[in-house]
Amino acid sequence: MEEKWRNRFGEWYSDIIEKAEILDVRYPVKGIHVWLPYGFKIRRYVLAIIRNELEKRGHEETLFPLLIPDYELAKEGKHIKGFEDEVYWVTHGGINPLEVKLALRPTSETAIYPMFALWIRSHADFPVKIYQIVNTFRYETKHTRPLIRLREITTFSEAHTCHGSYEEAEAQVKEGVDSYSSIFKALGIPFILSRRPEWDKFPGADYTLAFDTLFPDGRTLQIGTVHQLGQNFAETFEITFENLEGEQEYAYQTCYGMSDRVIAALLSLHGDDSGLSLIPEVAPIQVVIIPVWKKGHIDEVNREIGGIDKELVGYRVHIDNRDKRPGRKYYDWEIKGVPLRLEVGIRDIENQVVTFVRRDTGEKFPVKREELRDKVEEVLEDIRKNLSERAQKYLESRIFKVYSIENVKEVVYNKKGIAKTLWCGRKDCGVDIEERADVDILGILEEEAEGSCIGCGEKAEKQVIMGRSY
Amino acid sequence: MEEKWRNRFGEWYSDIIEKAEILDVRYPVKGIHVWLPYGFKIRRYVLAIIRNELEKRGHEETLFPLLIPDYELAKEGKHIKGFEDEVYWVTHGGINPLEVKLALRPTSETAIYPMFALWIRSHADFPVKIYQIVNTFRYETKHTRPLIRLREITTFSEAHTCHGSYEEAEAQVKEGVDSYSSIFKALGIPFILSRRPEWDKFPGADYTLAFDTLFPDGRTLQIGTVHQLGQNFAETFEITFENLEGEQEYAYQTCYGMSDRVIAALLSLHGDDSGLSLIPEVAPIQVVIIPVWKKGHIDEVNREIGGIDKELVGYRVHIDNRDKRPGRKYYDWEIKGVPLRLEVGIRDIENQVVTFVRRDTGEKFPVKREELRDKVEEVLEDIRKNLSERAQKYLESRIFKVYSIENVKEVVYNKKGIAKTLWCGRKDCGVDIEERADVDILGILEEEAEGSCIGCGEKAEKQVIMGRSY
Repeated sequence: MEEKWRNRFGEWYSDIIEKAEILDVRYPVKGIHVWLPYGFKIRRYVLAIIRNELEKRGHEETLFPLLIPDYELAKEGKHIKGFEDEVYWVTHGGINPLEVKLALRPTSETAIYPMFALWIRSHADFPVKIYQIVNTFRYETKHTRPLIRLREITTFSEAHTCHGSYEEAEAQVKEGVDSYSSIFKALGIPFILSRRPEWDKFPGADYTLAFDTLFPDGRTLQIGTVHQLGQNFAETFEITFENLEGEQEYAYQTCYGMSDRVIAALLSLHGDDSGLSLIPEVAPIQVVIIPVWKKGHIDEVNREIGGIDKELVGYRVHIDNRDKRPGRKYYDWEIKGVPLRLEVGIRDIENQVVTFVRRDTGEKFPVKREELRDKVEEVLEDIRKNLSERAQKYLESRIFKVYSIENVKEVVYNKKGIAKTLWCGRKDCGVDIEERADVDILGILEEEAEGSCIGCGEKAEKQVIMGRSY
Repeated sequence: MEEKWRNRFGEWYSDIIEKAEILDVRYPVKGIHVWLPYGFKIRRYVLAIIRNELEKRGHEETLFPLLIPDYELAKEGKHIKGFEDEVYWVTHGGINPLEVKLALRPTSETAIYPMFALWIRSHADFPVKIYQIVNTFRYETKHTRPLIRLREITTFSEAHTCHGSYEEAEAQVKEGVDSYSSIFKALGIPFILSRRPEWDKFPGADYTLAFDTLFPDGRTLQIGTVHQLGQNFAETFEITFENLEGEQEYAYQTCYGMSDRVIAALLSLHGDDSGLSLIPEVAPIQVVIIPVWKKGHIDEVNREIGGIDKELVGYRVHIDNRDKRPGRKYYDWEIKGVPLRLEVGIRDIENQVVTFVRRDTGEKFPVKREELRDKVEEVLEDIRKNLSERAQKYLESRIFKVYSIENVKEVVYNKKGIAKTLWCGRKDCGVDIEERADVDILGILEEEAEGSCIGCGEKAEKQVIMGRSY
């Protein structure tokens, strides 16, 4: 039963985006959508978690411009190569051609780093740790998908830091990883952290660490990346500082980002056949109360519900007073993933109970009226835990250790999972493995490798994960 | 003394934007700036007030796309005429020309209304009340100025509503005015509300109500507008509904907006020679504590300050522990407009007091240690009140009733004020008055007119305000 939605995940996903009123995808430009009020609220609560986590660790929020002059974007050769096919260009103001073409930011290094060059003078200025949450743009020619592959990425959270040594930048990479891990944990999104192979790192970075999760259809989704930039961008943008020895030195930088995909994962990993199942912290409505009206007792039921609503102050509670049958209301709020439903009828009142229904398990049980508030707290916390654990277990159950290209294919294409396997570490062999398996090397794990490379049979240097990514 | 900053307002304003770390204006595109962390926090608190006010009245937050297809933008003839010289056009994706040119939204009617046409079916769908806070773009060829005249308007708050009758839309216009009035009141920004003359209304609107405030240099700034759209856009975008009689009818619409200018006004109206003077509700730091260290008593002072900080939980408190002289610290926080400064030295501790210094008045006075928290609350509230009243009085003192074109000129150019005068109501005469006075008719007041038009001498139909606007 539970598996049905997974087997028709693509359809389920489109359905849910529409029926749970997350986005309206009918906007007349491909890959560009409208956030509806219910979806926008989820986004808002997710952003609150992201902001809180970054600010706790000393990142300050800023806002840099959308428009980047062409000469700035082009400065870092490798970087621009990674983006040039996908950049939207503003070429005219009114009917007049612009003297300098302006790019819509595909990401903001080239908007931010010229300013860093002005801000940073000496080692005393470090660390610089800023972030922003903005829209970014990619001219996607491939098939687009809501929240996953977009032309307007509406919710790009990007942090940028500068330091006085490579070691400090390394420590910052770790902090970035910790921050993102905490955010994913709060959202109940399980992940695998790995180091992207050289040929798949962020253009201009020394190396890229990436967070991938597994979608119900067996494809992996990159939900966050952390980049060690070394001095690469600092050299290009002349971000220098006077070091302790009184000499000018290039700054050491990191950056990390996550996007709308975090919300795609949040929605997709906790679903089921009836719709969404939201983590309480980001649910626009945490508790929905459904009156079970019976002739002659309507006022009594409404009064009781008024009392319950008051008692639950601090929670996001909605009373569904629509003139519809309870069953229809259950159905609507299940699609929207409201974590906890309370049903209140005359029999509940007589028995001095409230009927609880958990969205995650479907369990239905009476709770003593006097224990209401405590139980709501307890159940919501238990839902959070259960959804997180369930998603974690699902991911773990889909990671398979394999030792041949045939088995990689088997795992990825038939079992809809992720293959954990062995690689010698040489680029040409890695690319060859990818081609033969028709599966990408997502990244290199920290764990040590023992055995032979599945490509060339030489001694394996690395454990890697392989999968089909979105 | 207080007048000095007003007399050199242009310079003061640029200074403050830089020294209080609101924006970095050195970004390499004209009229496009970077929000720095301190400025960004002010912006965040202002937005919290705006969101709170709109949501209290049932507006739901959404997010519509930045990019608008050229054919949508061009649909409403009058509307596009008002914007076409100022629209930025995206013409290329990578190196490929786009089939459909995309405009960067100058405002979002043409992005939102095609979706309204899909959402609205019947009278039961009303009212629709949404808002969004987004960046918008204008290709300004005139002189730009931070937060006032921009190419990237970073903070455009726009609400859009649909209704089943003109009367309901009229009621909504009133609610829009009330919402905005509350927001300005919370920010201590005094305003004059008037109806823009026909030739200066929002392109496509039936009529436009506008909020203007007066800047220290004698120029008026439009800080908010509310538009009755009637059925104009609904006809263009085919937003129809089935009315109570079962007939298809065009929807009735309103929209209203405010921008970065609200923040410009907030900063400018409460300043003085020493810098900003922030309304406590939007101050990133509400209370700054300065230790007055004396050899042999440093630990004692720090301990006392630790206790004070704990006691002030819930306020935004900053302890300035920098290794600098107190005088230098006072100076820094005055520029940044921190409403309340507490000075704590060994003598204060011995006397069981804390020294309070108000940013708005400069008053310095001891407060009994045990009354600290109550006094902080009281003083912050009094600062809010005082700043609001001071700004209100200043505006009132600069509005002059006059009855000739000569006197309009005198008021606006010499007294740096706003002229309140009489007009017959005819467009040709109005335009003629504007030309002869070299001053704009800002808008028409609700108050009745008695006397003769200053242009033609005929019976005056309207009281109007005239001024030099930004």
